Amino acid sequence: MRDVSIVGIGQTAVGEHWDLSVRHLAGQAVLAAMEDVGIERVDSLYIGNMISGETAGQEHLGALVADFVGLRGIEAFRVEAACGSGAAALRVGYMAVASGLADLVMVAGVEKMTDAVGNSVTAALGAAADADYEMPHGLSFVSINALLMRRYMYEFDVKHDDFAELSINAHRNAVTNPNAMFHNRVTREQFVNARMIADPINLLDSSPVADGAAAVILCPSERASEYSDHPVRIRACTVGTDSLALHDRRDPLFLEAAYISSQKAYATVGIKAEDIDFFELHDAFTIMSALSLEAAGFARRGQATQLAKEGVIGLNGDLPISTMGGLKGRGHPVGATGMYQIVESALQVTGRAGPNQVPNARLGMAQNIGGSGATIITTILEAHS
Amino acid sequence: MRDVSIVGIGQTAVGEHWDLSVRHLAGQAVLAAMEDVGIERVDSLYIGNMISGETAGQEHLGALVADFVGLRGIEAFRVEAACGSGAAALRVGYMAVASGLADLVMVAGVEKMTDAVGNSVTAALGAAADADYEMPHGLSFVSINALLMRRYMYEFDVKHDDFAELSINAHRNAVTNPNAMFHNRVTREQFVNARMIADPINLLDSSPVADGAAAVILCPSERASEYSDHPVRIRACTVGTDSLALHDRRDPLFLEAAYISSQKAYATVGIKAEDIDFFELHDAFTIMSALSLEAAGFARRGQATQLAKEGVIGLNGDLPISTMGGLKGRGHPVGATGMYQIVESALQVTGRAGPNQVPNARLGMAQNIGGSGATIITTILEAHS
Repeated sequence: MRDVSIVGIGQTAVGEHWDLSVRHLAGQAVLAAMEDVGIERVDSLYIGNMISGETAGQEHLGALVADFVGLRGIEAFRVEAACGSGAAALRVGYMAVASGLADLVMVAGVEKMTDAVGNSVTAALGAAADADYEMPHGLSFVSINALLMRRYMYEFDVKHDDFAELSINAHRNAVTNPNAMFHNRVTREQFVNARMIADPINLLDSSPVADGAAAVILCPSERASEYSDHPVRIRACTVGTDSLALHDRRDPLFLEAAYISSQKAYATVGIKAEDIDFFELHDAFTIMSALSLEAAGFARRGQATQLAKEGVIGLNGDLPISTMGGLKGRGHPVGATGMYQIVESALQVTGRAGPNQVPNARLGMAQNIGGSGATIITTILEAHS
Repeated sequence: MRDVSIVGIGQTAVGEHWDLSVRHLAGQAVLAAMEDVGIERVDSLYIGNMISGETAGQEHLGALVADFVGLRGIEAFRVEAACGSGAAALRVGYMAVASGLADLVMVAGVEKMTDAVGNSVTAALGAAADADYEMPHGLSFVSINALLMRRYMYEFDVKHDDFAELSINAHRNAVTNPNAMFHNRVTREQFVNARMIADPINLLDSSPVADGAAAVILCPSERASEYSDHPVRIRACTVGTDSLALHDRRDPLFLEAAYISSQKAYATVGIKAEDIDFFELHDAFTIMSALSLEAAGFARRGQATQLAKEGVIGLNGDLPISTMGGLKGRGHPVGATGMYQIVESALQVTGRAGPNQVPNARLGMAQNIGGSGATIITTILEAHS
């Protein structure tokens, strides 16, 4: 099996791109990645996307994007694992290079959430949950997370205010990320008084609906220096799953798929959680940040918000999270999010994160979550030494 | 890179399963494949599916099916390339085993087309085509194929009747396939007089909307004998692409993605088209059979229907096609079709196709088409010697 590295990255600014369709968004990221490497051809293209079928009536994004960027003919298809689609596509690209079946592979995540011409975005996002046993009861994807947050607050005697720092930290880091959707700081007072979305989740607990695309180019590590001055090794890219429906889980407040996926990743690299220098977690909602920190082994059960309050999660803390703004501040174009996390982590481990740089970031971990935790993909990145 | 073999198969009968949802269909095929091998665990599960998001509001089938069949926790996600989703998932499973990242991999294709609770099936299938430049003109997926058929008839001076044998052959073979949707023979007279769907495509040119699921278990070839008495080597599994929109193609009557994908497959195995013993082609419409036979190198341009009339395509002919009924007779549950082709081809090359057996079938080729030809995946199978 070949060792795999990232040799190029590309991303579009996250936001409301009313003038761009899904192919344009993906195209921008893909072409930026090719320009980053200085190549005009790759062997294959894997696209992570969740809801283009529902919102734009457009499946079949692999061939569509390949053709749009001038790569007509190459191997291409789409990978989907709800909001975990981006990193699931990375997993496929990783396998393609690791196997020796391909030498230069493009992986892109893309989502177009504004301007839905088919189903509403809210309905489309519900397809991440159990369509037979959860959604018919009138749940939305936000309200599923609200159930989790309410139960967490009850079980662990945590107040809503206790989640504030998770949102404040993400927004603080987004200010200096030019590709982030939001550049406004959030205060504790704003957090507490934000408009309610689905009790207890308020506006500042929630990541925004957004458009965006991000891409990387992979190649065998032994050839990485031919293509890049700052290649990044994929030390692990592992997948864990759980039931889609909350009510089927052993313990809804423990993200078992995150535990499985993290433990697999740590074992692959031969490290422990404490060896990780920063953690790009999937903060679709503040409750998801808390559950991720606990399941991945960074905080004890019920203690994640305490960790956040102690300043550990800031750029200069022991475990920086959401270093470029996270889903909350950078924005959460669902099928693209996993690839934004990878692009941002690659910038961090190569010391190119500018004002957002985590000091001495060597080993970075990104974790992309599909649904309320049914598919979780953990990727550990390290710069070439 | 490791050589990869199929060691187990499973399939549900194709038909209208009003009492089964997408998870039940997939579950039946997956459990049948596990029973075939006599195992209760695999390392990962890749699901090919096209329209579950649109018709059932259910994305995220990887984790859903893994959980449903008792495999909660394992790596799982979905792969999509329109009607080519089944074989695209096989490609991912192939890479997983070839790379050494997994030893036992389940690949399943599933589609639930009856009982759509969201978009209509017709609208959902349109997502295989170009949503910005084809569908807004009022096209359906059938009418896109009708444009191809009309143009083919004009360019090559072929009459509608000339396509009859393609439909007759498929139905003839479906009669003795217990998993086929249709068990009625079709006469030339019935073909000629069948109800018009989208001129010149009539009912007997068209494969039916159906429910179904099919699955295989993969492992490294060197360990195949531990799991199966009739293992099948995947000699090649290759992907080619083209533009989604017909008007963007160099020549709409030449399936360039089929040409690319077939040539890659032949080169991988080191053979020519004439070495293939049977060809499970993607006869969603009779025109697609003709275009496939030509692009894959079995007939000259405009000559495919002539080939069919000469009896070449029958079970005892030089190039049997649709040997278990094809999409026309077995049925075309879109995201599952590619995996039905693989299951049927595996039965053929191991001499287990019963009354449908192609004599001395050694090298079999299956070709799964996404859209009107934008993604085409070619798989060449051979029994272990």
